[in-house]
Amino acid sequence: MVLSEQDPPGIVRERDTGLVRALHGCHLTNATFDRLTRLPKMLGPVEQALEGQVYVYQFKINFKMAFGGDVWKWHQDFIYWLKEDGMPSSSCMNVLIFLDDVNEFNGPLLLIPRSHHHGLIEVRMSTGNGAGDWRESFSVDLKYALDKGTIARLVEESSIVAPKGPRGSVLFFHPNLVHGSAPNISPFDRTVLIVTYNHVGNVPAATARPRPEFIVSRDSRPAIALAENSL
Amino acid sequence: MVLSEQDPPGIVRERDTGLVRALHGCHLTNATFDRLTRLPKMLGPVEQALEGQVYVYQFKINFKMAFGGDVWKWHQDFIYWLKEDGMPSSSCMNVLIFLDDVNEFNGPLLLIPRSHHHGLIEVRMSTGNGAGDWRESFSVDLKYALDKGTIARLVEESSIVAPKGPRGSVLFFHPNLVHGSAPNISPFDRTVLIVTYNHVGNVPAATARPRPEFIVSRDSRPAIALAENSL
Repeated sequence: MVLSEQDPPGIVRERDTGLVRALHGCHLTNATFDRLTRLPKMLGPVEQALEGQVYVYQFKINFKMAFGGDVWKWHQDFIYWLKEDGMPSSSCMNVLIFLDDVNEFNGPLLLIPRSHHHGLIEVRMSTGNGAGDWRESFSVDLKYALDKGTIARLVEESSIVAPKGPRGSVLFFHPNLVHGSAPNISPFDRTVLIVTYNHVGNVPAATARPRPEFIVSRDSRPAIALAENSL
Repeated sequence: MVLSEQDPPGIVRERDTGLVRALHGCHLTNATFDRLTRLPKMLGPVEQALEGQVYVYQFKINFKMAFGGDVWKWHQDFIYWLKEDGMPSSSCMNVLIFLDDVNEFNGPLLLIPRSHHHGLIEVRMSTGNGAGDWRESFSVDLKYALDKGTIARLVEESSIVAPKGPRGSVLFFHPNLVHGSAPNISPFDRTVLIVTYNHVGNVPAATARPRPEFIVSRDSRPAIALAENSL
């Protein structure tokens, strides 16, 4: 993937290859992505699960490019939103859309079923990637990665699943569900789009070092569903 | 895995984690491994495929340990034996035994079916790992890795297969079959044992810089099958 000479602000590149690893906040600048977040097929199940109105908290595209997309270490998402942003509770939800076909070869998302029932699992914080900024939460040296002993114990309990399927497939998952994914050595890109919705009653308080708007949306007005097929 | 303070001569460690990546020539010092190479279930199919008597050319155990076993870049095996050892033709065969259960999560061997029909594919030699010794052929920076364009073309033609199964499963494969494997981020070790048999009429001529005996056996006397169940 070739982007312009000047990287946009929400970009993360792979440490070793320089390939694009992730883009953030695309819904803020692109009308199609914005409409996507308000489709009834996205919003409906989330409002049902969280029992109330929600807003878009985070929007990202994770690329995991062919021949070079790197690992995502095992982690839970909620710990980032709690520790970095001060989100009060885990009343939020990820909706993940496959933008490429996902198969067993291109580094599919690995999930540990039922691991969210353990709630937030404390971790020893990594030293990060040295950047000291918001990228620490999205780089290969993930800030709140879970340790090996914890993963071994959880997998012993519940094994692992790796959902595969054609582009357009959608996963809804809890912010405390433990997940990760291996590097992609295949010739197939594995791009996924992730919208995180937060309950309107779960807005973080202001923090001392707020992360950028393209990482954490402060516009907590409830998302209102569009008509079906509004893309 | 903990080995003695003093590493044995045929060992390769992972670049980043220091975990054991591979052991070579174990049949030279261990009677059980030696007997394994002469079991009729191993020898019989190989002699049948290569149409004649064979000897053990190379013996290795590749560990790919849980939470740290690293990538094997896409490659063919025969190019190493041709370029490093002067093996005349590809009249040899790999027999790979799963020593651990292999699943979709622990970095299974990825094979491109029918790719051996392309014969030897020339590669631009990597600069290696700087060691300048036999380890260049077994480290993460593989000496004769295939380029992305070649892999994309071969996979387009024939896709990829990743054999899975319980420990004890066996694969027989051609030395020109293109293969590789992703890092292992799972809590499951993925240890495999590989015996390479060479046809007795295909013994390499002496080379200027012979690799160690634990990498390339010079004892080309034909392997004679033991009785069944001789382990």
